[in-house]
Amino acid sequence: MRFTIKREEFLKGLNIASRAISSKNAKAVLENFKLELNEKGLFITGTDENISIKTQVPYKLGEEDIIRNYKEGSVLIKARLLVEMIRKMDTEEITLDVIDSTIATISNSNNRSEYSLNCVKVDEYPDLDLDANGTELTLSRADFDILVSQTTFAASLKEQRPILTALNLEASNGTLTATATDSARMARKTLSIPLGVEFVANVPAKMMNEVNHLLEGRESVTIAFSDKKALFTIGTTVVATRLIAGDYPNTKNIVPKVTNYLLEVNANDLMKAIERANILSIDRENIVDLSMSEDSIEISAKSSQVGSAVERIDVFKYVGQNLHISFNSGFVIEAVKALGSADVTLAFVGEMKPFVVENASDDSIVQIVTPIRTY
Amino acid sequence: MRFTIKREEFLKGLNIASRAISSKNAKAVLENFKLELNEKGLFITGTDENISIKTQVPYKLGEEDIIRNYKEGSVLIKARLLVEMIRKMDTEEITLDVIDSTIATISNSNNRSEYSLNCVKVDEYPDLDLDANGTELTLSRADFDILVSQTTFAASLKEQRPILTALNLEASNGTLTATATDSARMARKTLSIPLGVEFVANVPAKMMNEVNHLLEGRESVTIAFSDKKALFTIGTTVVATRLIAGDYPNTKNIVPKVTNYLLEVNANDLMKAIERANILSIDRENIVDLSMSEDSIEISAKSSQVGSAVERIDVFKYVGQNLHISFNSGFVIEAVKALGSADVTLAFVGEMKPFVVENASDDSIVQIVTPIRTY
Repeated sequence: MRFTIKREEFLKGLNIASRAISSKNAKAVLENFKLELNEKGLFITGTDENISIKTQVPYKLGEEDIIRNYKEGSVLIKARLLVEMIRKMDTEEITLDVIDSTIATISNSNNRSEYSLNCVKVDEYPDLDLDANGTELTLSRADFDILVSQTTFAASLKEQRPILTALNLEASNGTLTATATDSARMARKTLSIPLGVEFVANVPAKMMNEVNHLLEGRESVTIAFSDKKALFTIGTTVVATRLIAGDYPNTKNIVPKVTNYLLEVNANDLMKAIERANILSIDRENIVDLSMSEDSIEISAKSSQVGSAVERIDVFKYVGQNLHISFNSGFVIEAVKALGSADVTLAFVGEMKPFVVENASDDSIVQIVTPIRTY
Repeated sequence: MRFTIKREEFLKGLNIASRAISSKNAKAVLENFKLELNEKGLFITGTDENISIKTQVPYKLGEEDIIRNYKEGSVLIKARLLVEMIRKMDTEEITLDVIDSTIATISNSNNRSEYSLNCVKVDEYPDLDLDANGTELTLSRADFDILVSQTTFAASLKEQRPILTALNLEASNGTLTATATDSARMARKTLSIPLGVEFVANVPAKMMNEVNHLLEGRESVTIAFSDKKALFTIGTTVVATRLIAGDYPNTKNIVPKVTNYLLEVNANDLMKAIERANILSIDRENIVDLSMSEDSIEISAKSSQVGSAVERIDVFKYVGQNLHISFNSGFVIEAVKALGSADVTLAFVGEMKPFVVENASDDSIVQIVTPIRTY
């Protein structure tokens, strides 16, 4: 294999594929990119076995030659080194020439830089399933972004119950429902989709964020869900991620149907007050208290060693009897932030029941936080 | 003690003094600021025993009241919490009221935030020597900045030989000479100062950087050197640092008087080539090789496992016989960067002798790097 390539387009491709390369991979072969040059262009693949990314650099972009003076072939080459090298070079073109499948020489167009990298034959690389099959759904960048950013933060980061690290996606009757929960809180977002698209898939929440990042500046993404994988197609890049096996917990009945206490406040006032009070929640792992009555809303925190904080919110609407509730400050702040609205409604069933964080004017998103028992 | 203070000025003072607060201080009392309100204003002090910073917030700035409604007094109060609190508040004024020397209440001007912090009597605070005595020298911000940024990077970061963590300052005959060395390289900068100012002081290089940071946006600094400390006065802030005891190594004869090989190159070309070649110096801890002849300049690196790199520099002037030398890439890059000039001269005595990195048009700065023996 050999080719001369526009450095900028090569680097773009390398950067995309490198998002699948893990710095601490047990399998040495996965520290490599797989580079393949065939009649369609240069394909760069990276994988850490959880996520695989394959992206294409075409021979031409419009009238502009991107790859020239080439010979088809393939090779495995150290990903981190190649990215660093191409990033630090400063000529318009780069030439990569593979000698005998074991050494690649990389030079820039003024021949001032000449590198020779040991490389590996492609047959050592794992077979990756990067074909689109199963049910397909196309989402705009804006829809995908909102789906991901309003939900994935609520998924679990711990591997004890792997299913909770997923974003649960369920498509039926023209609605896509995305649910994330770490069992102490839940975020759910619904989107309208074409009728007839039906599937259930548990996609690692982390991978949804990764795909959302790759979508920046793009128009849309097409997702194909099969039994074991989700395959995202973004322009000339495909991203495959395994699905998480197992049944997602039944979260259908978590959103309370009837609530007895209702607080409406400015989202920013609420977040700022919680953030400040939280400074004094040192001994209590970010737990703050919320005391509500028709006359006053107070957020407070206390540390036996350090002191105490009381925050009052002046402008609010509260309906219900006096209520005192304690919660993880980060959970409520993240939920309010995810709503992205100027005002926010908190609806409570009772002191120890999960409560709702929502936006009165947008019923496509609902968030649930479980209070914490304090003494 | 009590006072109502403009939040922004209070925060500025807290941020300055907090630069002396260490997050991992063995003495709990040093996690506090000392706040003192006397007839001159509010004084905020922080120390970690190596560096002490005391800054003043005045009663008035021009016609504007900064502190009002006050009662003199003093208290020790948790530094990290106070900074975080004042930073997160959003009103123009803050009121701090110390009750009985053990509790401070902090409230904002709309009374929506009310904090109560346990605090400590000032008599538990160490006595700090923050008086200016000894020889004084005033430097402009520009001179101080260049003195520090062209030298301190060459000081040692390791505590094995504490004296090498210092910037050695020597004033005599109208010249201030600053020297830093970690024993493998050296940076020396000279400045003209008034005749008659004579002193020798070993100031921790880290503290010189800290003072340089505090000087941002200021005009000048006055330094008073006594036997055991240097005291920096920057506007209404004083910074005291202990000096490092012991004799600084004799570096007078390290700069070679006669050199046999002379390379002149563009600084940027040289740094870029070293940076790129260094990608392949993985097994050798950032060692790269420089081969010079009248026909070519090559920088190379090799890793037995990964591959090799050769960088050629096209535009250069070289006088001398062929020479091959190996060095720590970071040392040469930092030395070239510190010069801040478009072109750079490297002057060599021989393969294993320390070499000079300098700028032909500025003899106030000279840098020495020791080559590394490679096989």
